[in-house]
Amino acid sequence: MKVNFTPGPSQLYVTTESHVKTAFKTGIPSISHRSKEFEAIYKEAVTGLTELLKIPAGFHIVFTGSATEIWERSLQSLVADQSLHFVNGAFSTKYFEIAQQLGKHPVKVEVKDGQGFDNVPIPSVDPELIGLTHNETSTGVSLPLDFIHSFRDKYPTAIIAVDAVSSLPYPKFDFSKIDMLFFSVQKGFGLPSGLGVWIVNDKCIGKADSLLSKGISVGSYHSLPSLISMSAKNQTPETPNVLGIFLLAKITGDFVSRGVTAIRQETNYKAALLYQALEKVSFAKPFVADAAFRSQTVIVAETGSHTERINKSLQPLGLYPGDGYGKAKATQLRFANFPAHSREQYELLVDSLLKME
Amino acid sequence: MKVNFTPGPSQLYVTTESHVKTAFKTGIPSISHRSKEFEAIYKEAVTGLTELLKIPAGFHIVFTGSATEIWERSLQSLVADQSLHFVNGAFSTKYFEIAQQLGKHPVKVEVKDGQGFDNVPIPSVDPELIGLTHNETSTGVSLPLDFIHSFRDKYPTAIIAVDAVSSLPYPKFDFSKIDMLFFSVQKGFGLPSGLGVWIVNDKCIGKADSLLSKGISVGSYHSLPSLISMSAKNQTPETPNVLGIFLLAKITGDFVSRGVTAIRQETNYKAALLYQALEKVSFAKPFVADAAFRSQTVIVAETGSHTERINKSLQPLGLYPGDGYGKAKATQLRFANFPAHSREQYELLVDSLLKME
Repeated sequence: MKVNFTPGPSQLYVTTESHVKTAFKTGIPSISHRSKEFEAIYKEAVTGLTELLKIPAGFHIVFTGSATEIWERSLQSLVADQSLHFVNGAFSTKYFEIAQQLGKHPVKVEVKDGQGFDNVPIPSVDPELIGLTHNETSTGVSLPLDFIHSFRDKYPTAIIAVDAVSSLPYPKFDFSKIDMLFFSVQKGFGLPSGLGVWIVNDKCIGKADSLLSKGISVGSYHSLPSLISMSAKNQTPETPNVLGIFLLAKITGDFVSRGVTAIRQETNYKAALLYQALEKVSFAKPFVADAAFRSQTVIVAETGSHTERINKSLQPLGLYPGDGYGKAKATQLRFANFPAHSREQYELLVDSLLKME
Repeated sequence: MKVNFTPGPSQLYVTTESHVKTAFKTGIPSISHRSKEFEAIYKEAVTGLTELLKIPAGFHIVFTGSATEIWERSLQSLVADQSLHFVNGAFSTKYFEIAQQLGKHPVKVEVKDGQGFDNVPIPSVDPELIGLTHNETSTGVSLPLDFIHSFRDKYPTAIIAVDAVSSLPYPKFDFSKIDMLFFSVQKGFGLPSGLGVWIVNDKCIGKADSLLSKGISVGSYHSLPSLISMSAKNQTPETPNVLGIFLLAKITGDFVSRGVTAIRQETNYKAALLYQALEKVSFAKPFVADAAFRSQTVIVAETGSHTERINKSLQPLGLYPGDGYGKAKATQLRFANFPAHSREQYELLVDSLLKME
């Protein structure tokens, strides 16, 4: 059996394929997205996510084609002029760049790849939205929750927007300190790609409505007001990825049954195993030097000239690490640590690495 | 067996489920969208569509989350100020409305639901894009190809944009007379929803580039220039619906093997059967009065007070008509006539209708 450690698309969750079979057996891909049956699926996904992530009242869940789309839609619907972005890798950079492409005037606080934002000066601006990438998938840096939660008091009017694409369902956010949160299903949820999940509060809706009322275009069918208005009927503006929403509903149910606390504990266990091994071996080390910023869900190893040797050693065992991102393709390896990756698979991975010494 | 005649999501093509099984067996949902393996799938889909639809050189194929998205992206990337829309139902109206929502200044030529554009006066404007809905899914009106092809000479600088969402692969467009064409996969291609296909020529790319060079925002990750630049490497800007693109590649291959001419002939045969029956029975008639405008792929029956009785008569046989659209929900039935709907299923449908007399 092949175990895929790429950080997304990644290993499918153990029940994903059986849910796909159920979907085809029961005709889900042919149902109308305007039917009661679809509305029930939409509601099941929303209810499941609300329970899994302990999302409080005042928040709403809508669906897009990808998390990349949510970068764009959030800037389009929630920012007239200026957003502030914390940039420390390729994906946080993209959120910033999309603001530029949409003709906004974003500012950024930038540190080097592999670093967090420890005592970094923040320009004195009054941003409408603050973009925080909880987990920088390209480098394996995770921002501490305290850092993310610190913005609410300092910027009471800004939308606090958290990209948790490659970390959910692991992190336990304080929803009183953030206004929107998003992810895509092909990472921690172990599903085929093609669906983004956007969780927004009433403040976001109010902001989008206020832009609209000033005659500012907030987009069209996937503007936040359009998505929210359809979500009130458990529907989407367009024909969505119906199969994807069905699978999300089912997997979320599985995660709820397993228990998010158990998932978090197992994630911590597996991450500790791998980081300890990377500290021990001579041919690799954690890329993120400061342990406080190390991601528990995407673990990046600096492997330098040993990269190919490690791959050649692991692949015959069915263990497929993800390549390093971009310019680090030949010198780093990335290991997703998602609910789909079992304890046993991580133990095999770590044993195999230690044996290479 | 249940036969789904809703016009999309609709009946799956006979081979769809087996391609899904192959995808899961070979690990397609876990492959990276930056891998050679994904690039090969992308290329297979593009090559197959090019062969199936006889797309000439100078055209390019890119993917979005839905055809609704293509309404938006085409207006965003190709129109600075004014588009012209031919409106005769809910879906052509939406294309027009999206232009308004994006802050453009669209104009429309409008006729009543169920009608085509016969000798309708066209306002004297110089549009940047002309939106033509080949097949109005809400009403079953299809625009004759000669009409669609007549705009090129009259509007040499405009982008001729053809929405063929619920008609492809049936219509045989003259690509020298149009500039862009689009559809979504859950209709004629018999696949699960969640993927739009946008076919554009070099003129479209030139137009988007010229807007960009004037400092006009054409969108971000899914702007036409961004989509085209990634498509040159057989990739997409975001993590796309990888499974959807794989299935499209496979189904397109199946359609090529079956032969598009055979598909067209069978479509004509099945449409003729049903229209003849609707002309014959006393309890229903074709909604589109003028035969010249009747769709071959979405056949709408005016069923008035007999609607429920017809449904109750057909459903026990496994035949599920689609509801009428919007306000016609209780008084019309819609019958998709896609490659997934077999001759035998249409014969059973028509026999059953005739027996109700």
